[in-house]
Amino acid sequence: MNRICNLFNIKYPIIQGGMVWCSGWKLASAVSNNGGLGLIGAGSMHPETLQEHIDKCKNATDKPFGVNIPLLYPEIDKIVDIVIDSGVKIVFTSAGNPKTWTNKFHEHGITVVHVVSSSKFAIKSEEAGVDAIVAEGFEAGGHNGREETTTMCLIPQIIKCISIPIIAAGGIASGESMLAAMALGADGVQMGTRFALTEESSADFCFKDRCLRLNEGDTELILKQITPVRVVKNQFYEQVKEAENRGASIDELREILGKGRSKKGIFEGDIFEGELEIGQIASSIHELDCVEDVMKEIIKSFNSELERVCKMGRL
Amino acid sequence: MNRICNLFNIKYPIIQGGMVWCSGWKLASAVSNNGGLGLIGAGSMHPETLQEHIDKCKNATDKPFGVNIPLLYPEIDKIVDIVIDSGVKIVFTSAGNPKTWTNKFHEHGITVVHVVSSSKFAIKSEEAGVDAIVAEGFEAGGHNGREETTTMCLIPQIIKCISIPIIAAGGIASGESMLAAMALGADGVQMGTRFALTEESSADFCFKDRCLRLNEGDTELILKQITPVRVVKNQFYEQVKEAENRGASIDELREILGKGRSKKGIFEGDIFEGELEIGQIASSIHELDCVEDVMKEIIKSFNSELERVCKMGRL
Repeated sequence: MNRICNLFNIKYPIIQGGMVWCSGWKLASAVSNNGGLGLIGAGSMHPETLQEHIDKCKNATDKPFGVNIPLLYPEIDKIVDIVIDSGVKIVFTSAGNPKTWTNKFHEHGITVVHVVSSSKFAIKSEEAGVDAIVAEGFEAGGHNGREETTTMCLIPQIIKCISIPIIAAGGIASGESMLAAMALGADGVQMGTRFALTEESSADFCFKDRCLRLNEGDTELILKQITPVRVVKNQFYEQVKEAENRGASIDELREILGKGRSKKGIFEGDIFEGELEIGQIASSIHELDCVEDVMKEIIKSFNSELERVCKMGRL
Repeated sequence: MNRICNLFNIKYPIIQGGMVWCSGWKLASAVSNNGGLGLIGAGSMHPETLQEHIDKCKNATDKPFGVNIPLLYPEIDKIVDIVIDSGVKIVFTSAGNPKTWTNKFHEHGITVVHVVSSSKFAIKSEEAGVDAIVAEGFEAGGHNGREETTTMCLIPQIIKCISIPIIAAGGIASGESMLAAMALGADGVQMGTRFALTEESSADFCFKDRCLRLNEGDTELILKQITPVRVVKNQFYEQVKEAENRGASIDELREILGKGRSKKGIFEGDIFEGELEIGQIASSIHELDCVEDVMKEIIKSFNSELERVCKMGRL
């Protein structure tokens, strides 16, 4: 039995990343209804909005689903209470110290997974008692590790350090890359970009449309002096790069970033001035499909690639 | 039959990267004698030095071997003549236009492989008539693509664009990552870092020793405004970063770089002031082994991982 399927009681070891502005109840319930694990992304929700999405998600699926909580969230206490009081049974935490909340979640019978981008934080997460980790590589969209370790390098190194299950993320959007991640030793995969660009994603159509037209090299990890984030190269990006290249101060960079840039880009669809967070692998996705079709395609290509690889035979 | 083994008439689809200051006749012949394809790295050799290494390599192995030629090499005509006149049958080209020399090599019965870091240049290489390509991801050591596409994202995208065989490179140093690359669709793999850190590599012991003690995050891709290069974070790196962060001009960056930095670091072993070119995956390598042991370990772990993956069964 696959350790990730076992941990969450799901059919396929495929997690939908709990992204800002993309991952509401529609997306999460669709992924869960199709045998994966859907996550509501609390990072872009007011507490009352999260409550609404949890309630709607419960009505939309009888399968397991979870909530992704960035631990640096300003109203973190409220968010934690809502999650516990609503009877959510799976929480993915990121951007913060997993020690702070893991015990409390466990006391309420909640499975906790922490997102990391290095072996060092994988070890700290295991020590904090989390049940599994997401190991996310440099190619992933949105906020990202400072060390720039790619999925191909990260997974085999983390596996040597910890014994809890590992979910690989970053650059995975197909059955082929899912199989590759599992060949590296991951127990399952988390896909963000793939599900951000589906019909059920709550991102604005203009954001999805822009991302579906990307070519290789059209995203870049920027703002490394503040918090590294992978975005589409647009006017906002150009403004940041121009400032970075002339050695602008952190204060000036913060001012250029301003507030609400990702909402502007992803949720309001301003593809010029918004922060369009998406992964490198977006350039391989060109059609806006529904979650059911995406899941079927992933499983089909995983199975056919597995068959091909097994036929290769030993060296 | 594996297309890469077929193309080069070798036992295992494992190519040793033809790196500057590491890949002399000792390393190349050792890899070839152990069933892979060894490459002499002409990039760091005067023409007469290359001649010597080709002659010695021929004496040291009766197996196929090749030469890696950076096409921007100042004495490229001399290098090409030496390769042709010496009866070398395999050439890997990089850093330049594959159209310029491919026909000439083909007229002399030489198999040509070009190194690329994007689908765009993979297509151009196929159009130029090369026999295979190396697709190298962001995590690779030394000089590297400007678009920063990682191996996990690059391989599946290139496969959709071309029909000639594909050798994956970047972040691959074990049987697990070799299997992952082949799950992504590659026909074979090229390993640079893994072989740079062997007994037979001509790099200085101090360079190897420093690289064998690296932790995750200890390399970075720098000098993107000149030619992107992945190096170990040392004093030279700090000097470059300080200049880059304050918006130094390209001229100033060139002056800091100076001439002979990679020789100083890799061949002369100045681990402080030299340019220490190595891949991200170096942090997973801690022992200085001989090529025979490295090859055996790769094949053993590939086979055991293949068995494990095939036992997972279909989704």
